Amino acid sequence: MWPKNCWYVAGFAREATQTLLKRKLLNQAVILWRTAAGKLIAMEDRCAHRLVPLSTGKVVNDQVECGYHGLRFGQDGACSHVPGQDSVPKNSRVKTFPVAERHALMWIWFGAADLADEALIPDLHWNDAPGWTAVTGYSHFNCDYRLINDNLLDLSHETYIHKHTIGNDSVADSPVVSKVINGRVVRAHREMPDIDPPPFFAAMQGHRGKINRWQIAIHMAPGFNMTEAGFHSVGSDRQTDACLTRPLHLITPETEHTSHYFWSLPRNFRHDDAELSSKIYDAVMHTFNEDRELLEIQDKALQAEGMPQIPQTAVKTDIAPVQGRRLLAEMIQREKDDPRFVLPPAPLADDAIVTMSFAEAAE
Amino acid sequence: MWPKNCWYVAGFAREATQTLLKRKLLNQAVILWRTAAGKLIAMEDRCAHRLVPLSTGKVVNDQVECGYHGLRFGQDGACSHVPGQDSVPKNSRVKTFPVAERHALMWIWFGAADLADEALIPDLHWNDAPGWTAVTGYSHFNCDYRLINDNLLDLSHETYIHKHTIGNDSVADSPVVSKVINGRVVRAHREMPDIDPPPFFAAMQGHRGKINRWQIAIHMAPGFNMTEAGFHSVGSDRQTDACLTRPLHLITPETEHTSHYFWSLPRNFRHDDAELSSKIYDAVMHTFNEDRELLEIQDKALQAEGMPQIPQTAVKTDIAPVQGRRLLAEMIQREKDDPRFVLPPAPLADDAIVTMSFAEAAE
Amino acid sequence: MWPKNCWYVAGFAREATQTLLKRKLLNQAVILWRTAAGKLIAMEDRCAHRLVPLSTGKVVNDQVECGYHGLRFGQDGACSHVPGQDSVPKNSRVKTFPVAERHALMWIWFGAADLADEALIPDLHWNDAPGWTAVTGYSHFNCDYRLINDNLLDLSHETYIHKHTIGNDSVADSPVVSKVINGRVVRAHREMPDIDPPPFFAAMQGHRGKINRWQIAIHMAPGFNMTEAGFHSVGSDRQTDACLTRPLHLITPETEHTSHYFWSLPRNFRHDDAELSSKIYDAVMHTFNEDRELLEIQDKALQAEGMPQIPQTAVKTDIAPVQGRRLLAEMIQREKDDPRFVLPPAPLADDAIVTMSFAEAAE
Repeated sequence: MWPKNCWYVAGFAREATQTLLKRKLLNQAVILWRTAAGKLIAMEDRCAHRLVPLSTGKVVNDQVECGYHGLRFGQDGACSHVPGQDSVPKNSRVKTFPVAERHALMWIWFGAADLADEALIPDLHWNDAPGWTAVTGYSHFNCDYRLINDNLLDLSHETYIHKHTIGNDSVADSPVVSKVINGRVVRAHREMPDIDPPPFFAAMQGHRGKINRWQIAIHMAPGFNMTEAGFHSVGSDRQTDACLTRPLHLITPETEHTSHYFWSLPRNFRHDDAELSSKIYDAVMHTFNEDRELLEIQDKALQAEGMPQIPQTAVKTDIAPVQGRRLLAEMIQREKDDPRFVLPPAPLADDAIVTMSFAEAAE
Repeated sequence: MWPKNCWYVAGFAREATQTLLKRKLLNQAVILWRTAAGKLIAMEDRCAHRLVPLSTGKVVNDQVECGYHGLRFGQDGACSHVPGQDSVPKNSRVKTFPVAERHALMWIWFGAADLADEALIPDLHWNDAPGWTAVTGYSHFNCDYRLINDNLLDLSHETYIHKHTIGNDSVADSPVVSKVINGRVVRAHREMPDIDPPPFFAAMQGHRGKINRWQIAIHMAPGFNMTEAGFHSVGSDRQTDACLTRPLHLITPETEHTSHYFWSLPRNFRHDDAELSSKIYDAVMHTFNEDRELLEIQDKALQAEGMPQIPQTAVKTDIAPVQGRRLLAEMIQREKDDPRFVLPPAPLADDAIVTMSFAEAAE
Repeated sequence: MWPKNCWYVAGFAREATQTLLKRKLLNQAVILWRTAAGKLIAMEDRCAHRLVPLSTGKVVNDQVECGYHGLRFGQDGACSHVPGQDSVPKNSRVKTFPVAERHALMWIWFGAADLADEALIPDLHWNDAPGWTAVTGYSHFNCDYRLINDNLLDLSHETYIHKHTIGNDSVADSPVVSKVINGRVVRAHREMPDIDPPPFFAAMQGHRGKINRWQIAIHMAPGFNMTEAGFHSVGSDRQTDACLTRPLHLITPETEHTSHYFWSLPRNFRHDDAELSSKIYDAVMHTFNEDRELLEIQDKALQAEGMPQIPQTAVKTDIAPVQGRRLLAEMIQREKDDPRFVLPPAPLADDAIVTMSFAEAAE
């Protein structure tokens, strides 16, 4: 259902504090917290005594104290204190998980702990790099995480679901070029020259004049998605005048049929425009709520049928999602065959990619 | 659980428009809609592409457009358009179901399509025939549809459940004559001469004087019920003075434990009395809500026990419901033995039936 | 899961009236009611006719009348009347259960009826004996009843869960002496000399001066718990000045994962102080709600793991709950081996017990 030997986004780095953060990831209930010195810790949310979730308790002196009988566990998960007795039971410990902080995100690893190399963290620097201003947020989807990947790899749905923000007929009507890069990353490129701007683009541009728009849906298994979205007014120059956003959709399975959707929308323009940031936040949440509503209906329908293979009718815009599913299935199968298998990430994009023409993409 | 080679009521004809109507019938999710020319169409509520319900979409040019990626399907269920490409995948289609309109009702057929002869639609002309004024409505019961049939075939429950509208002690205390007509229709006849009118009858009569009341519970499998209910003031003449209603209870299974209850209360008197119509609507909904509450409790109790045989204690008033269950079980068994088996309907009543005496009924 | 050949508390005696009381106990739906003469009756909540719960009906002339078709059943469960017919079906009856009233409580027996000897009712006289004033109440816990027993046998949790009422650090930090009395009753004794009073004790005492506090958690399978809780101001005499409460926690399984929690807090002081009684009620409900919240989380966590053995890490304060679990498991096993096995109750406490010193308890 999902690979384990890879880093997953556990949340935004700002979420971890000295108050326990309770979250379920890949069916595993965890608590995330920081020591007084700021070190990030992830532990199983389950006391080793009577199996009550440790999230009922609190952090005391860099240890987690259970909310039922007050047993404490240190950063390494070992029991460090039992009220009413001097000794501590040997071998009493709660599981800990490798964690890391990068790109203002928390990362967690559920596979073999010795394989958890931070060099394997995907490059998502747009979330906190100079030259980019990122609006971030979170949404919870009651659906299989793979349906969100599918949705992000076939953006023709914008025409039907997102008419009020980012969709109009031009999206579904434009041809797509989809390819696999480095055997690891799917890129589905669509150019929409000389079109009327959908409402959200008119707002970002500041007027309703025609635009040249392009979008590149980028995906890397298991759940890293970027939707490069650029446009410039017709007659202006793409290299110097384009407004470029590189929305990140970081999907981490919560359970088989529920998903965490951490998102970030970095832009390369109007950096200090707080009103624009606020509009972006609202437009993104509006848009993702539309996706959520539909994907939850789809998940329910698929569950009722026992999760049959999709698509059943294959159309051109399915090429990218089908490529994405195949790469994910291979990754899961290879780990099944070899529990020590690790698939390194590849770059999602480089800063020059905006200049690649559609014709080049199609080659 | 239910036969398939027969017409079921899918709703009132007025419910189908150019806006998709989503409804589950016999465990099958369908959409019901009309072409611009008014033709009624029923389709599986499931896009052939990614299995999203088509009810997420809308009617466009006599086709249904899916709400996710905009694929369109024509009246025959065949895919007629895919956005972003010129060709349409062969063999891509959604299932359609035979439908018909009669007696101001929509009818649907889930069995072998070539057997769907409109001549097999039961005669329910009272719903829209001259000489009858029908108040109609809908209720949703969270119970097995057979429990509703049982309930309608043993009206002694009126004494215990419906004291505020149609029940008093006279109902349960009066003897019933129950028989099977034409091997197809169950009729349970009860005469209640010279009784105090229950509240709803006093309202219809306009005063609280004694009445001669009769009722005939009529049932035809799988879910067609009529409760002929007549009364006249003591001393008046049944032939010329009786107020007669022929309530229709048209029960269509939604799932094994949920049911659609389409109802109609045709009357042969005070045709233009809108205030009476409004009172009838309120009294019927009040009454059916009482049934619903009890039958949902019964269904839950039976499910908890694994749906044991009922009744366990057989009493006289069980004769009609037991006859009804037997005819239904035979109909299901015969279809199981021969998937092409079709059981034609029989008349529920004729207009002269009001004159049949109780003694005649008992013969 | 639970023994059957023993008396369970079905409720407070005051709850049974001529209106049917519907309650599920040990997975059995029952109705509890009284005859006009005041005799207590318990019956299966299931009509022998169409299996509708009899709780839909009412008491009529010392019989229960079903709310659907009006069949009546007498005190012995036999059908006594069918509307519309003169005869009554033989062998039509609903199950009845042995019941008793003692200590202002209703008792019910689900095992072999001929073994239901009232001498086997546990002595809980504190609930209505002279010299004791009892505040009583009810709570419903969505958890396995055994988790409530565990909780009551390890009161160190007071320090972590009940800081606002009965807990402070002194509880968890004090040693416990736990033993099994008469092979039947577990007693876990904790002395807390010269401590600051937790908030609820300060309220009972009337000031915040230091106290000598003791508590004895007493348990008898399957669900009889008493928490002897005493204290007196430092410098005063335990024999003459102690305020003593003997809270009873009477736990009856409703289903495998839901429980009835009937409680009573008898005190030997300030008998006529209605304001204190009201404060006690509020403090108890506040305290039990804290337990409930935690135990429901624990039950959910254990169910998700398939109910593994607890504790997994054994600590000193587990001795009493482990003793309690062992006695209960033995009781269930012996009944399994011999369906006629009955384990008589033993006294929970005697009135002199307050004087037993901690040193004596530890012997």
